[in-house]
Amino acid sequence: MNLISSKDDLLFAVLTVQRAVAQKSPLPILSGIKFKAEADQLFVTATDLEIGIQCSVKAEIIEDGSAVLPSKYITELIRRLPDVPIFIKSDPFKGNVTVKYSHSETIINGFPVDEFPNFILPAGNITLNIPEDIFKEAVKKVVFAVGTDENRPIFTGVLLEINDGQMQLAATDTHRLAWQKLNIANIDETEIKIVIPGKTLNELSKIIGRPEKFVKITLTSNQVLFTTEDVSLISRLISGEYPHFRQVIPQEPLSRVRLKTKDLIAAAERADLLNPEGSSVIKMQVQDNVLVVSVNAVAGRAYEEMSVFQEGEPVQVAFNARYLVEMLKVTGSEEIDIEFTGPLSPGVIKPVGEAGYLSLLLPVRIREE
Amino acid sequence: MNLISSKDDLLFAVLTVQRAVAQKSPLPILSGIKFKAEADQLFVTATDLEIGIQCSVKAEIIEDGSAVLPSKYITELIRRLPDVPIFIKSDPFKGNVTVKYSHSETIINGFPVDEFPNFILPAGNITLNIPEDIFKEAVKKVVFAVGTDENRPIFTGVLLEINDGQMQLAATDTHRLAWQKLNIANIDETEIKIVIPGKTLNELSKIIGRPEKFVKITLTSNQVLFTTEDVSLISRLISGEYPHFRQVIPQEPLSRVRLKTKDLIAAAERADLLNPEGSSVIKMQVQDNVLVVSVNAVAGRAYEEMSVFQEGEPVQVAFNARYLVEMLKVTGSEEIDIEFTGPLSPGVIKPVGEAGYLSLLLPVRIREE
Repeated sequence: MNLISSKDDLLFAVLTVQRAVAQKSPLPILSGIKFKAEADQLFVTATDLEIGIQCSVKAEIIEDGSAVLPSKYITELIRRLPDVPIFIKSDPFKGNVTVKYSHSETIINGFPVDEFPNFILPAGNITLNIPEDIFKEAVKKVVFAVGTDENRPIFTGVLLEINDGQMQLAATDTHRLAWQKLNIANIDETEIKIVIPGKTLNELSKIIGRPEKFVKITLTSNQVLFTTEDVSLISRLISGEYPHFRQVIPQEPLSRVRLKTKDLIAAAERADLLNPEGSSVIKMQVQDNVLVVSVNAVAGRAYEEMSVFQEGEPVQVAFNARYLVEMLKVTGSEEIDIEFTGPLSPGVIKPVGEAGYLSLLLPVRIREE
Repeated sequence: MNLISSKDDLLFAVLTVQRAVAQKSPLPILSGIKFKAEADQLFVTATDLEIGIQCSVKAEIIEDGSAVLPSKYITELIRRLPDVPIFIKSDPFKGNVTVKYSHSETIINGFPVDEFPNFILPAGNITLNIPEDIFKEAVKKVVFAVGTDENRPIFTGVLLEINDGQMQLAATDTHRLAWQKLNIANIDETEIKIVIPGKTLNELSKIIGRPEKFVKITLTSNQVLFTTEDVSLISRLISGEYPHFRQVIPQEPLSRVRLKTKDLIAAAERADLLNPEGSSVIKMQVQDNVLVVSVNAVAGRAYEEMSVFQEGEPVQVAFNARYLVEMLKVTGSEEIDIEFTGPLSPGVIKPVGEAGYLSLLLPVRIREE
């Protein structure tokens, strides 16, 4: 491998793929980043065997070839390179790579190239094209709700379902749930129901997002491939039947409260301050168009009052404040409706003026004082 | 205590004094912040018994009085308050304080006021007035060199010496040293030699810095008091004889190298990347107006070359790269001179065009290859 590139191109490539570098793996090779020069492209790849990311950048290739270098050395070196032409040349016999810039050079010892896992882009039978910015926004609105318990893997994923010409994304950790419907062009004939690891979508959403660009989704029976102009991200899928989450969404609420999102965020965050560590329970009471958020703790008492628009019966319910605040922040909407169906039923949050999205939070049981 | 204030004034006061709140102390009261209303001022105070900070802000005082509240609750509450008039009222019988804003309120349980240590401003026999921005800059340039070993307390402090109408600041951890001379008006009659804890000056430098304002320094036999318009910071002094550091500064260098500060920072940082954790040794060689920084490690080799202006003999010396980079960054000068007196003598760094400052770094002994 022998090539000339720029700091900016190299940095874009390594920063994009390093999200897939294995942090702690018994296989040292997975802490490496693979560089492969071919035709007029430099392909940069990393994988932790769950996710693989490949990024291609244009480069002046003098000789084809490849090398695998420890991510921590090559990434930090590139970050600190001066803005001059960068000459990269591998020595297959010594197993190292020389990075030359101005009159200086750094030689980094590499890993054996043939130990690096193959990165084969699957030829799937189903492909979709979705605007990057729309998919990124939808992912953000559901992925926060995935679970972290590896003993219940299905909840660590996001359901992606397509039928009747509509795409739906859903995630739940059984305490809270987020559900987004999207209208996507040209999916009338498609039928999909897959579960994508939350981590995959989190990493994807850091890569995509440019307006007027499309991300292509390719599916096989056990893998998903996301492709943009210069990046490919492969991930395993999570197997198993996703739970029937629709039935937990209350259909006939007893009351509905409309309020300014940021007012409730501020009140909940202030009230939660007094809670002892490990607890985050706030009480909410709605009556006569007034919502009161309260906490009664050893450290003191919080009483937060705000005007709301109330329909239906008075409400008294307790929530986990941190969960509630996270959900409110994700909605991205100035006003929200919260629907209640009793003190032990979930609260349903819907952004005002935006059909197709809801999030849901189970209440916390508290003793009456 | 009963008063009306604003979020901004309260936040300024608690953020200023919370630097002195004890992080871990067997005395719970020291995790508190004291509020004292008197005349038309609110005095806010915190202390960990080593440092004490008091900040005063104008407030509408309805009733004099005081209260001590846990820093973590009151600071975070104030940070999250809305921008409306804030009503603060203490209940001396219940020992709590009610903070009211709009239609909401938070009641925080306090500490017994009389357990809080007295904050008595010492009436010193020596006072100095120094421009805030000049003193802050001087502190920044020396305080990084203090030691952290509490078994050698004298090295954890900064020497402040005044004689012959000149102020000098010096700090050393015995591996490196920084020395700043300052010309201050009206100190011809003053003779001082004190050692101020590095922590005190670090905290002070976060408080002061406004141009055209003066910080007043008041000295007693064992305390120093810094006073600005609205803040007072008291600290103990470190007792003991400060070492005679001047004799370690080589007076007749064998060679002198002039170079661009940021070039050497970049080269040293890149070369240091390859060093194994815990080591940070780089080799420097100067010959024929070329400086080479090199590292030879298991991970690879770095060779960084830059043009310099050299006077005197060739040089070969090894330094701790992290120490060197920290010193170079602090100089704040585009160009520097480094003076060498042999491979086992300290290197002396002097910013070009700025008399009155130097820093010094002891070399690392390395085996010749």
